[in-house]
Amino acid sequence: MPISETDPASYVTAARAPEDFDSFWASTLSFDEPLDARFEPVWARAITVHDVTFNGFGGQPVKAWLAVPTGTTTRLPCVVEFPGYGGGRGLPHQCLLYAAAGYAHLFMDVRGQGSGWRAGDTPDANAGDPQHPGFMTRGVLDPSTYYYRRVIADAVRAVQAARVHPLVDPTRVAVTGISQGGGLTLAVAGLVPDLVAAAPDVPFLCDFRRGCDVAPAGPYPELVRYLAIHRDRAERVFDTLAYFDGVHFAARATSPALFSIALMDESCPPSTGYAAYHAYAGPRELSVYPFNGHEGGEATHDAVRLRFLDDAFSR
Amino acid sequence: MPISETDPASYVTAARAPEDFDSFWASTLSFDEPLDARFEPVWARAITVHDVTFNGFGGQPVKAWLAVPTGTTTRLPCVVEFPGYGGGRGLPHQCLLYAAAGYAHLFMDVRGQGSGWRAGDTPDANAGDPQHPGFMTRGVLDPSTYYYRRVIADAVRAVQAARVHPLVDPTRVAVTGISQGGGLTLAVAGLVPDLVAAAPDVPFLCDFRRGCDVAPAGPYPELVRYLAIHRDRAERVFDTLAYFDGVHFAARATSPALFSIALMDESCPPSTGYAAYHAYAGPRELSVYPFNGHEGGEATHDAVRLRFLDDAFSR
Amino acid sequence: MPISETDPASYVTAARAPEDFDSFWASTLSFDEPLDARFEPVWARAITVHDVTFNGFGGQPVKAWLAVPTGTTTRLPCVVEFPGYGGGRGLPHQCLLYAAAGYAHLFMDVRGQGSGWRAGDTPDANAGDPQHPGFMTRGVLDPSTYYYRRVIADAVRAVQAARVHPLVDPTRVAVTGISQGGGLTLAVAGLVPDLVAAAPDVPFLCDFRRGCDVAPAGPYPELVRYLAIHRDRAERVFDTLAYFDGVHFAARATSPALFSIALMDESCPPSTGYAAYHAYAGPRELSVYPFNGHEGGEATHDAVRLRFLDDAFSR
Amino acid sequence: MPISETDPASYVTAARAPEDFDSFWASTLSFDEPLDARFEPVWARAITVHDVTFNGFGGQPVKAWLAVPTGTTTRLPCVVEFPGYGGGRGLPHQCLLYAAAGYAHLFMDVRGQGSGWRAGDTPDANAGDPQHPGFMTRGVLDPSTYYYRRVIADAVRAVQAARVHPLVDPTRVAVTGISQGGGLTLAVAGLVPDLVAAAPDVPFLCDFRRGCDVAPAGPYPELVRYLAIHRDRAERVFDTLAYFDGVHFAARATSPALFSIALMDESCPPSTGYAAYHAYAGPRELSVYPFNGHEGGEATHDAVRLRFLDDAFSR
Amino acid sequence: MPISETDPASYVTAARAPEDFDSFWASTLSFDEPLDARFEPVWARAITVHDVTFNGFGGQPVKAWLAVPTGTTTRLPCVVEFPGYGGGRGLPHQCLLYAAAGYAHLFMDVRGQGSGWRAGDTPDANAGDPQHPGFMTRGVLDPSTYYYRRVIADAVRAVQAARVHPLVDPTRVAVTGISQGGGLTLAVAGLVPDLVAAAPDVPFLCDFRRGCDVAPAGPYPELVRYLAIHRDRAERVFDTLAYFDGVHFAARATSPALFSIALMDESCPPSTGYAAYHAYAGPRELSVYPFNGHEGGEATHDAVRLRFLDDAFSR
Amino acid sequence: MPISETDPASYVTAARAPEDFDSFWASTLSFDEPLDARFEPVWARAITVHDVTFNGFGGQPVKAWLAVPTGTTTRLPCVVEFPGYGGGRGLPHQCLLYAAAGYAHLFMDVRGQGSGWRAGDTPDANAGDPQHPGFMTRGVLDPSTYYYRRVIADAVRAVQAARVHPLVDPTRVAVTGISQGGGLTLAVAGLVPDLVAAAPDVPFLCDFRRGCDVAPAGPYPELVRYLAIHRDRAERVFDTLAYFDGVHFAARATSPALFSIALMDESCPPSTGYAAYHAYAGPRELSVYPFNGHEGGEATHDAVRLRFLDDAFSR
Repeated sequence: MPISETDPASYVTAARAPEDFDSFWASTLSFDEPLDARFEPVWARAITVHDVTFNGFGGQPVKAWLAVPTGTTTRLPCVVEFPGYGGGRGLPHQCLLYAAAGYAHLFMDVRGQGSGWRAGDTPDANAGDPQHPGFMTRGVLDPSTYYYRRVIADAVRAVQAARVHPLVDPTRVAVTGISQGGGLTLAVAGLVPDLVAAAPDVPFLCDFRRGCDVAPAGPYPELVRYLAIHRDRAERVFDTLAYFDGVHFAARATSPALFSIALMDESCPPSTGYAAYHAYAGPRELSVYPFNGHEGGEATHDAVRLRFLDDAFSR
Repeated sequence: MPISETDPASYVTAARAPEDFDSFWASTLSFDEPLDARFEPVWARAITVHDVTFNGFGGQPVKAWLAVPTGTTTRLPCVVEFPGYGGGRGLPHQCLLYAAAGYAHLFMDVRGQGSGWRAGDTPDANAGDPQHPGFMTRGVLDPSTYYYRRVIADAVRAVQAARVHPLVDPTRVAVTGISQGGGLTLAVAGLVPDLVAAAPDVPFLCDFRRGCDVAPAGPYPELVRYLAIHRDRAERVFDTLAYFDGVHFAARATSPALFSIALMDESCPPSTGYAAYHAYAGPRELSVYPFNGHEGGEATHDAVRLRFLDDAFSR
Repeated sequence: MPISETDPASYVTAARAPEDFDSFWASTLSFDEPLDARFEPVWARAITVHDVTFNGFGGQPVKAWLAVPTGTTTRLPCVVEFPGYGGGRGLPHQCLLYAAAGYAHLFMDVRGQGSGWRAGDTPDANAGDPQHPGFMTRGVLDPSTYYYRRVIADAVRAVQAARVHPLVDPTRVAVTGISQGGGLTLAVAGLVPDLVAAAPDVPFLCDFRRGCDVAPAGPYPELVRYLAIHRDRAERVFDTLAYFDGVHFAARATSPALFSIALMDESCPPSTGYAAYHAYAGPRELSVYPFNGHEGGEATHDAVRLRFLDDAFSR
Repeated sequence: MPISETDPASYVTAARAPEDFDSFWASTLSFDEPLDARFEPVWARAITVHDVTFNGFGGQPVKAWLAVPTGTTTRLPCVVEFPGYGGGRGLPHQCLLYAAAGYAHLFMDVRGQGSGWRAGDTPDANAGDPQHPGFMTRGVLDPSTYYYRRVIADAVRAVQAARVHPLVDPTRVAVTGISQGGGLTLAVAGLVPDLVAAAPDVPFLCDFRRGCDVAPAGPYPELVRYLAIHRDRAERVFDTLAYFDGVHFAARATSPALFSIALMDESCPPSTGYAAYHAYAGPRELSVYPFNGHEGGEATHDAVRLRFLDDAFSR
Repeated sequence: MPISETDPASYVTAARAPEDFDSFWASTLSFDEPLDARFEPVWARAITVHDVTFNGFGGQPVKAWLAVPTGTTTRLPCVVEFPGYGGGRGLPHQCLLYAAAGYAHLFMDVRGQGSGWRAGDTPDANAGDPQHPGFMTRGVLDPSTYYYRRVIADAVRAVQAARVHPLVDPTRVAVTGISQGGGLTLAVAGLVPDLVAAAPDVPFLCDFRRGCDVAPAGPYPELVRYLAIHRDRAERVFDTLAYFDGVHFAARATSPALFSIALMDESCPPSTGYAAYHAYAGPRELSVYPFNGHEGGEATHDAVRLRFLDDAFSR
Repeated sequence: MPISETDPASYVTAARAPEDFDSFWASTLSFDEPLDARFEPVWARAITVHDVTFNGFGGQPVKAWLAVPTGTTTRLPCVVEFPGYGGGRGLPHQCLLYAAAGYAHLFMDVRGQGSGWRAGDTPDANAGDPQHPGFMTRGVLDPSTYYYRRVIADAVRAVQAARVHPLVDPTRVAVTGISQGGGLTLAVAGLVPDLVAAAPDVPFLCDFRRGCDVAPAGPYPELVRYLAIHRDRAERVFDTLAYFDGVHFAARATSPALFSIALMDESCPPSTGYAAYHAYAGPRELSVYPFNGHEGGEATHDAVRLRFLDDAFSR
């Protein structure tokens, strides 16, 4: 995507939050069921990984991994991570970075996904409205049935689950994720007030209308293809999506944040990342990768993010 | 796909029906709820199209159109048609061919689909197991939850719905469809004994294992991509799919059939169509289109199929 | 084509009509040969379709279908339609929409085409100058030999042919078509003064120079590839094309028009459609499809266009 | 196209010549008009290139270049060359190789082509039947109107034109060409008895049915796409093509031949080249390029071919 | 690559080792310079990663990482791993799996590479013969100058480097790698006699001629493109490659091996993997992934390989 | 690339030459070794081509061809030409145009290249730092080791080699080349003061940063991909490239120049060509090809360039 966006850093979003945005989420997050987080060690070598189950949206069970350095006896800061679109929590030995770095690491499964590039184990009970293949249009005709309502509620619950584990210091929890994981990071940062840090990378789910206009790849085009068939539903669809826009979550966040944006990103175009970054209400830093596509900063940014988390956890 | 299959006409399938295939379907088709078919005219010009609603699998409402020549006063033979993968019933003025030809025409919506190329209106309530984008892997870990169990039950119900309309002659019903519609045609032909004709075109849902091995395009690769992630589930998945294989339905069909196969078809490779054709237990004819891909015979074959139906309806 | 044109609705064309534009067309349309329209019923069911032959440009025979509801006894309003690039009139049962809607429908074949996606039956006798594959550069070095001179003359004759049929009300004729059919619709609307309506969809043949600059797909690039070889002929080619530009025909039209434009159209970029729309001299309406490519509004717009035609025919 | 043909060298063609093949060509080559070859020097430096015009099929003027080393005073052996599909004679300074090698070189234009990759200047008057874009289906419903009847007649005339130039030794004429030029080389070798050599490279126009079955690129697919629309014309089309098949011309040739075949050729698949090579009735040699696609041997084979021509001319 | 190889498991290679294969490698591995392995901790958290430098081929410095669980005090079994084509050792925190599993892990950099997908730090001094972009043809005209001679010598040295570290048990060293890493694994397994295990995954560098014939993707086509230009060098190139063929190294290996092969692998086609597997002279196991491309078994196979290594290390 | 650059002709480059640009090149061009140009005739027909060897950068032997009309006895003006990226001098009979036009023609090989599309014979001894496949990043971390330092020095030496041949008039030497050859033409024009003309076509190696930003094809993306992995080296890489930028060479040139630019060029985007054209310090002309991609003016421009050279040589 050479220079398809002429000046993404100065892009001004037209996204506006619905008036009842906050009450919608307050209602969504008033869970009736107990969290009931359970942890079972399943991979115990130099790193120990626990199989995690907790009650997410609607009391439905959601899976995760919790990894810690073996032999840990004191409470550790914890990184809660959300996967990219189509992926799941994978296998236990895929969750090593943050535990190897000396932290606890909870990696949440995303309901229904996990058959595209990393396996997942969490079902998504849903109403079954007609949808475009993929997850972007599942239940999209109403905010109350939209797929990401359930996923974001799960993500908030994942932070709660991390905090109840005896090896996790509940006062030092950070959230992170790449792409969809970055969008969920923003959502949680906007909904959970007492995080110590948020690190969204090449975030998805930001300024949906812009994403539909400019993204030639990735999941935004699922919305475009749906609207190319259901030509009379654009207003209704974007009304729904406004409740799930990372830009609006960013405007409600307070924890320090480290963003990353890749200037040749065709899936999450840089302007959409900048829209969220500019809106972010807490302290914020930004790493820009001018020559990368949606892969973003990868291992290079892992190192940057680890330093950012070290700082956040040691404050 | 030039000559990628060296001799599809002589391909011998390895597909075998499960022992309880027939009891599985007998059980599935013992509907608890009444059919409750309702017909409301919504497009009344020289052709009249009715909005149809009937109770499909699980008593869930399924939509369809019923088109007849305006002014019809006697019972007409009826063509029941099923859409291709990703499509729905569309708009009423898209269902004109068979009514223009002088017949009644019921065009069934496919639950959950109808956002890929022609709009649909029928939800698919489902259990929500993780799935690959699309419909091929929805509930695929068990025959009782597999997506196509619900769709095929709906298709049997659609024939029942057609038969109760006062302008339809219930003794003269034929089924047809292209691609997924062809696969559903075979399923209904194998499950409903008293049809006067079946006309599956470039049928999908036939010999799934072969389809996974040879199809470079279309929906078979959804299964491949799912199994590329869930590497340990191949046996379980193909055990499920065996209950839904057009080859096995074909072996149970008795009505006269007209097949079409396109030799350059990359989505429904010709060998898979031949597998069903060779297995077909009733009288059968075949139109081969050597220079076509998955579009198959299109309007040329519409004319062939009309003549075939004329014969079947006048017997 | 995500956002490749930054603001197509405000695009200002640089196209200018040649001074002798009107005399060129007056001369072209002073036919020497009689029209000699013949109609033979070939498909007679609930809709009756006639095989039509009339004398087009140079007195050469041009084919068409004429469809009417069977049993019609009074003169009907008539829709004259022109096919898209590469297509022909197809088979009789492909022309059902407008007859099913209660109108007469004449669908013209396009000379020489009809081997790309819908079969055609009309030859194009031509001078044989070297050309790029396709029809865009056939005879393009001179307006008198350019391919579309013959086609547009045929299209004007098609309206005349429709008007002479005893079931057609000659005072209520409308023209329509998609893509190339939309371009021909504009041409006929600019050349035939007494139409009751014109409905060009995603029109091709508008502002050729702009089309060459921005269209990554479709037939405009045939011109680009020709000029990439014949590097010294650009001026001459665009001088020829100026006699065939839908923008100039639009500026001469008077009948009420319904346009459609698709904002992600890579074959007929939206700016070229807006150029014609802004130039249109008669009353005009516009349907914009923001999430569609060159397929445009499809069945959704068929419904819009039918309502527009209903209004036009009932005025 | 890695190994798409499993063993092309042993491919056995099913192509059979029509009974009246020879009389068809005898009739076609009984020209009524005089040859009337004219030569005008247009580029005179160390090589001199003449603009050539002669009467081809139907007496229509055909262009060519004739290049000789400047200062030549004695009759030279002459190489007559035909261009590849879509190309023309180009500009005079593009015809240097054989003159630089010390021979006369006549490079024929191909009527109607010359807008795809090298410019051409020769019109093709034709009957104008509907055709697929390109030249493969122009007039293909009858041998007498098929495009290549005119082109092959032109090619025979081009040899006659070369022979009448005062600097050409008419007893030492060879023919050559790449791709379409190779197909025309075979045609001329089969129709003109007294050539001293023929050098067809990666020849096109050989075993059309096989080409349609296996070629994923190049012009054979034009036939496939035409037959994909005109589904009922396959027999008629292949009956026509049988009069133009390089395999049948090869079986009538007597001059020594050097073939080249590229094993990864997707446009002129190796089996089609082998079909012609095996059929060739004169002495024959073959250069196989196992790692090349349709570009074949290029400059490497130019050197091989020059040595072959040196031998042929010095016999 | 659906079923492009009809029966890869029964493919019989034609590859033959040169007579002086063993003396060539004996000579290559008689290093003049001391190994001089240096280890410097650079990432010390729950896992400690050392920056490693040792003298590889020609005494040139080669980089690696050595990772161990922090706090290790006894000698550990060690996994020596080689990267895939185009990759390097990356950053220290990318080498976590085997240390997290409780082993030492040496990950070798590949000279000159490490700019394609994971960064590398090791230069490749070379003679500079013309080459195709990439590494496959660097110095390919002679075994003594071929790029992989240097890389394989480095890989043998990497095992030696691992063995001298005080936390590594030199009697329990295994080798592994994916793709190019799998090819190097086979080379080391054939050249180093006392390894406890070898685990080549989807191995590259096996049966080069077959790879050139059937691989549509990956680095084998670099050879094809080189030979497409240097048409007269095929024999010389394949004579060189015979000294580096994993099939011949496999025939000399004795340690227990776990192979993996993916049946839809377009870069390292399954037949080439089977060629090496069938030739392998030691005890061998095989995991086949029927629905995967070149990604192979990924995390699923990581678990299989870990169990295989656990067994090997505990014998 | 339809209109991807909105107004390339008015693009203003941000490229700035390093302060020591001139001293860097003065030092590079102070050759220690004698030129030692040797000429051996290898193809002697109407054109005679000599195999040329001279000492290039570091005294390393560089190959070329020198072609002249056979029988030449007086000193001729000479065209020195440099090949495009990936190509070499090829075979002797590929160098005919300028000799056929009556001039001497030296065609230089490019070290290390010549395996991509035209064969080369000149090695490139180099230090071997890790690099991206291709030549753009070879030694790119320092101007003294960068690949193009050696190539540009070779190109200056090629002019010297041409001048010492007894059939070349050393006072009438012009330089030319397409793409990379155009970039080298600019470099030589900026470094050699007494040329009579320079003709860079669609020049590469101009304004590297812009090329990285906008070129979707060709070799600029090699730099992008390298920097996508080595994310921390962008400043260092562009610091190196500043010593090799055609824009800076253009600003130092004095000979009359003919540029060509193609407006749809995706490999050498028009803005980069305009950057060099606007910077050019000598008299300059420009041919713009609005409908061509990177192929540019081809034979059409050959004729333009020949006229330009005729003028230059006859002044």
